Amino acid sequence: MTSAEISTGSRASESKGSVVISVDAMGGDRGPSAVVAGIAQSAEKNPEIRFIVHGPKAELERLIARRDGLAERCDIRDAAGVVTMEDKPSQVLRKGEGTSMWSAVESVRKGEATVAVSCGNTGALMALSMLRLRKLPGVNRPAIACLWPSRNPQGFNVMLDVGADIRADAQDLLTYALMGASYARNGLGLARPRVGLLNVGTEEHKGRAELKQAHELIGQNAEEGNFDYVGFVEGGDLPSARVDVIVTDGFTGNIALKTGEGTAKLVGDFLKEAFGNSVMSKFAALLAMTSLKRLQKRIDPRRVNGGVFLGLNGTVVKSHGSADETGISAAIKLAFQLGKSGFHERLAARVAHSITPEHAGATGKKHAEHKGTS
Amino acid sequence: MTSAEISTGSRASESKGSVVISVDAMGGDRGPSAVVAGIAQSAEKNPEIRFIVHGPKAELERLIARRDGLAERCDIRDAAGVVTMEDKPSQVLRKGEGTSMWSAVESVRKGEATVAVSCGNTGALMALSMLRLRKLPGVNRPAIACLWPSRNPQGFNVMLDVGADIRADAQDLLTYALMGASYARNGLGLARPRVGLLNVGTEEHKGRAELKQAHELIGQNAEEGNFDYVGFVEGGDLPSARVDVIVTDGFTGNIALKTGEGTAKLVGDFLKEAFGNSVMSKFAALLAMTSLKRLQKRIDPRRVNGGVFLGLNGTVVKSHGSADETGISAAIKLAFQLGKSGFHERLAARVAHSITPEHAGATGKKHAEHKGTS
Repeated sequence: MTSAEISTGSRASESKGSVVISVDAMGGDRGPSAVVAGIAQSAEKNPEIRFIVHGPKAELERLIARRDGLAERCDIRDAAGVVTMEDKPSQVLRKGEGTSMWSAVESVRKGEATVAVSCGNTGALMALSMLRLRKLPGVNRPAIACLWPSRNPQGFNVMLDVGADIRADAQDLLTYALMGASYARNGLGLARPRVGLLNVGTEEHKGRAELKQAHELIGQNAEEGNFDYVGFVEGGDLPSARVDVIVTDGFTGNIALKTGEGTAKLVGDFLKEAFGNSVMSKFAALLAMTSLKRLQKRIDPRRVNGGVFLGLNGTVVKSHGSADETGISAAIKLAFQLGKSGFHERLAARVAHSITPEHAGATGKKHAEHKGTS
Repeated sequence: MTSAEISTGSRASESKGSVVISVDAMGGDRGPSAVVAGIAQSAEKNPEIRFIVHGPKAELERLIARRDGLAERCDIRDAAGVVTMEDKPSQVLRKGEGTSMWSAVESVRKGEATVAVSCGNTGALMALSMLRLRKLPGVNRPAIACLWPSRNPQGFNVMLDVGADIRADAQDLLTYALMGASYARNGLGLARPRVGLLNVGTEEHKGRAELKQAHELIGQNAEEGNFDYVGFVEGGDLPSARVDVIVTDGFTGNIALKTGEGTAKLVGDFLKEAFGNSVMSKFAALLAMTSLKRLQKRIDPRRVNGGVFLGLNGTVVKSHGSADETGISAAIKLAFQLGKSGFHERLAARVAHSITPEHAGATGKKHAEHKGTS
């Protein structure tokens, strides 16, 4: 892979002295007004971001004009079509040209923007990103990585795949380990992330055959991949300080993700009910407001909004379909961090390197340069 | 299956006018004193339970003698050996005779006790139960069912399999649906439970091939099995009021269970930290004590302590290894409820019936009798 290939996608940001994020304004449950509100929130907090916003031009112009100074930081790309939550990915691949989602991904493909953000239909966004951006050399199955609130100092762990593909063989799981470690280095600032493989027990003899193979493979590649391999981890370890990156197939990961979200919401709702029970407890809730808000902030799913598609020629952040402006702003912030860190180029170099171990001797010097960063 | 076969296991309880629970006193993280404390708690709350307690005789006699009136409700079976958490199931099968776990299961096999309770090594307990109790006719893969705190009026949903077997084909998943529905009828008192199949989306085209097959099979057998089939459910639905029984393979179920437990514990710990933050919030916590205790009770994993092994010729309840006396007492309570309801006989009849649909015409009358109860 030449450096020209690797750097595609970051030209736009470099040339303007800022990071350009491509935002699909349509397809979320709350419509374009929530998306534009999220853009405005991010724009206010972070003067380094510029936006390319995709959707029906007249409506977007109207929404953006309402916000002070936002128009000059946004390029609008007119796209009349909308991918709905009901559209099947296969339909979108055939007929999706002209939709805001297609247009948003296209901006990354052309190198106008560094990262794309959409809160539309996950399956369609993944399929469209695969078709237009194509898989990175060395990646058989791309993955969606999510952030998980944790007891670690960085506040989050990374888990992947959470739903790009319902299958993963041992080689795919190794690729996920490499990509997840690279994401943790660039997105969470961890120099040497600890990677674990999700299983039903931590003993080596447990689990499915492909997990035992992956256990061997990941262990063998840890030094080369610049991460520590902690071995098998269990569901209870997802928020733990034992591990930073949890690797699993997309079926298991998706169910774990939704189970965790559902449980946190259940406990939160029970907590609200508990505090609404009596005059005394309502008074207590008032007194404890600051503490409760701090708790809410720690477990608020909107703060960790943004699954990242890894393994393509370009980075795409999937925001929750139900995201409000705070959620959208969190997804844009994540996109910005990844864009600014040069994450995509580093990940590409890391994966490209990992598939050519036979060249390790010849490219030893180049490898050493990557080692601390990608 | 003759009625003589079906009624094995309930003779002991019937003959004494009470339910006899066989308790393995060893193998838990907190040792036999916690187990005896749990027995004492259950004995006090419920005069209908009698116990057969398995472990080193001298130690158990000493522990039981300390509790007022407990000795006369306990038979002690001397067993010097202990199955540890590190023992491999295969070792226990070969050399486990003489352990308290083996002895506890044996009491159910012989019909001295209705249900066995152990907080020892899950894999060993499952393997031993399979070997000694054997699978029910019509069951290929037995399952472990757990209770999940939920928004339903009954307070819990049932999920199975949570770890008996890492694989399950479509026919196994149908068996889980039948067994789970029977458990919900007898353990939770739901006349017509709603059953859902865990998947990564609720659309019919999603998921693995065996899930699509199981989706068809379970739907076709709902009327016959006396449950409502709600179709695919997602991880977020586990605590929901959409469904009462969630069916999945033991790999996915185990990871979902541990993820849910881990998340609830994380939120609980964050909550404690939040209330310890300032003088004001500590004062608020004092005021809200009653409400917080109510919340804690709703999500306390000790209250739902007890995975139940389903699909064997006898019922075995697996308590958490780390269970304290409250947890052990909850597991014994569950064992008592199941023993008292005649759950095992009903489940056996239900599964036996489901595998002989070709005889449905001939045994129509008998089937109608089972329908409302098993």
